Amino acid sequence: MKRILVTALAASTALAAPALADDAALREQAKEMFEAIPLQAPMLEDNVISRDRVDLGKALFFDPRMSRSGLFSCQSCHNVGIGGVDGLETSIGHGWQKGPRNAPTMLNAVFNVAQFWDGRAPDLEAQAKGPVQAGVEMNNTPENLVATLKSMPAYVASFQTSFPGEDDPVTFDNFAKAIEAFEATLITPNSPFDKFLMGQDAALSDQQKRGLALFMDEGCAACHQGINVGGQDYYPFGVVEKPGADVLPEGDHGRFAVTETADDQYVFRAGPLRNIALTAPYFHSGTVWELRDAVAIMATSQLGSELNDAQIDDITAFLEALTGEQPQVVHPILPARTKDTPKPYTMVTEQ
Amino acid sequence: MKRILVTALAASTALAAPALADDAALREQAKEMFEAIPLQAPMLEDNVISRDRVDLGKALFFDPRMSRSGLFSCQSCHNVGIGGVDGLETSIGHGWQKGPRNAPTMLNAVFNVAQFWDGRAPDLEAQAKGPVQAGVEMNNTPENLVATLKSMPAYVASFQTSFPGEDDPVTFDNFAKAIEAFEATLITPNSPFDKFLMGQDAALSDQQKRGLALFMDEGCAACHQGINVGGQDYYPFGVVEKPGADVLPEGDHGRFAVTETADDQYVFRAGPLRNIALTAPYFHSGTVWELRDAVAIMATSQLGSELNDAQIDDITAFLEALTGEQPQVVHPILPARTKDTPKPYTMVTEQ
Repeated sequence: MKRILVTALAASTALAAPALADDAALREQAKEMFEAIPLQAPMLEDNVISRDRVDLGKALFFDPRMSRSGLFSCQSCHNVGIGGVDGLETSIGHGWQKGPRNAPTMLNAVFNVAQFWDGRAPDLEAQAKGPVQAGVEMNNTPENLVATLKSMPAYVASFQTSFPGEDDPVTFDNFAKAIEAFEATLITPNSPFDKFLMGQDAALSDQQKRGLALFMDEGCAACHQGINVGGQDYYPFGVVEKPGADVLPEGDHGRFAVTETADDQYVFRAGPLRNIALTAPYFHSGTVWELRDAVAIMATSQLGSELNDAQIDDITAFLEALTGEQPQVVHPILPARTKDTPKPYTMVTEQ
Repeated sequence: MKRILVTALAASTALAAPALADDAALREQAKEMFEAIPLQAPMLEDNVISRDRVDLGKALFFDPRMSRSGLFSCQSCHNVGIGGVDGLETSIGHGWQKGPRNAPTMLNAVFNVAQFWDGRAPDLEAQAKGPVQAGVEMNNTPENLVATLKSMPAYVASFQTSFPGEDDPVTFDNFAKAIEAFEATLITPNSPFDKFLMGQDAALSDQQKRGLALFMDEGCAACHQGINVGGQDYYPFGVVEKPGADVLPEGDHGRFAVTETADDQYVFRAGPLRNIALTAPYFHSGTVWELRDAVAIMATSQLGSELNDAQIDDITAFLEALTGEQPQVVHPILPARTKDTPKPYTMVTEQ
């Protein structure tokens, strides 16, 4: 029995040997460009991920009363059940207005170099202050939001325990800090790609391995690298060939609006590709619904290489291996409104 | 030590004795009119609450792709974190249209005699088919909804396991059945009132006990009785004195639209009062924001009795004792869309 087992193992090793060597080389190459998602939320600069703060941030993230209408919460556009997005081309906000860009996921967003498609927010705390105030999104003001929070004793108590020692902890800054702490926990480890990076050869199919090799060798990884396979730096959309206005609307100049530098015309943060199979439609315009089509457009516009169908299939298969374990979030029970809570304002704002 | 303890107990018993006698009488009276919320979901006629079916129903309940726009799910108006409501006067739906009536809670709704303010749906299965099709709400069609479900293999598999033995389980009927199964689990046991009914004298404060006595003796419980303290039968709004058009809009004839019987003019299902402290604003018009004000209006319009301030306070305090343990719901991870999934339609419908 023992001898048979040894023989079987030897045979298996012999058969697997070439594949293992390839896998090892592929893994080494990949580890120079990518990093696995950790199992635990990372430490933050200038914020503390305490249990109290995360719980408060979760309540705020899910509370539609943070919007002026009472209809929208962060969760409306960044749905924890749909890969952190809303599945729309661009989001619908206050008064049924459409937002200018596709809602990016907050999953693993803590690992991005900066937030928003143009990187105008340095971190998730700064990001959290944007949509609540945007007229086409939640249409609230910091004053009305803080008044809403202060009207509910359970929120006040939660801010007190989350920000101990502060005289007046219920502030717009702390609102954003709590949301950042919660969002930092929304990470998706253990994707097939992560398992491969950590040494499990069989975590990727042969097609996905070919796709990974192509992704690195054809140049995709020049922009889409790092822990989020993107989200680390800024690049012009249309390096080689500018896509049509259907995909790249001419009115959206990207990072130019942030830096006002001519070089930043049509420059965007490289999309982070973690869980990309869950977050259609694609690009900042949200006009491309199939991942395979997005890969083909990228190849043409950014690399100038016409990939053949099989290569596009292989890269698409690799991207599907970037889907990790989605966060299990118990829906928070929110504090009850009081007589002092500002009433929702559902009238449509003049545009 | 032992003797001191016995003495203390005797003293305590002596002090509590009159209160206990009152409590027992109050409890006996209450048990003739009310029933405690059970710890477990009840059995349903013509539906099976299996784990598979509940999980499927939960996914459907939280999935905004069940609406034509991709923006609204059941959860949008029946938020598990806000007592099962949206906290708006009347809900906002497709194209920012306002619904005609205040969104009722789905918590404990399985115990109502029928669903909707006018009872036009006999059960939660029938109810679930309404809002998804209503033009001012989710604005979907059964055909588009079923096409959406059939486009996602994970949903198809879930319907197969939830409705075993059916040739074509992905149907609009089964969609509604699964949601009913999930909603039947959304019950809120162990409110202070339930604990009192089950024998815990101290579960209600003295003020709440006075309020309970008033609630029964003044006649509130004539309409608001049973397990849901309401929701069991239909009554005219304004038995004694018709409220103003601000509270009772003249255009909404209530159950008359269902039965077309003159007697049903301005007749509504008595509001179920479980968790009522969480579900402002009040009445089918959603125009009254304070529970205390709602109590006062009811006294005038339904009972013809001008309760004094202390009595109104007492009844309000009793109603606050109807808040039970809110359901802990893990947000579902929804199936990813495929190339066959109908795209969201966000254009505003012509009215």
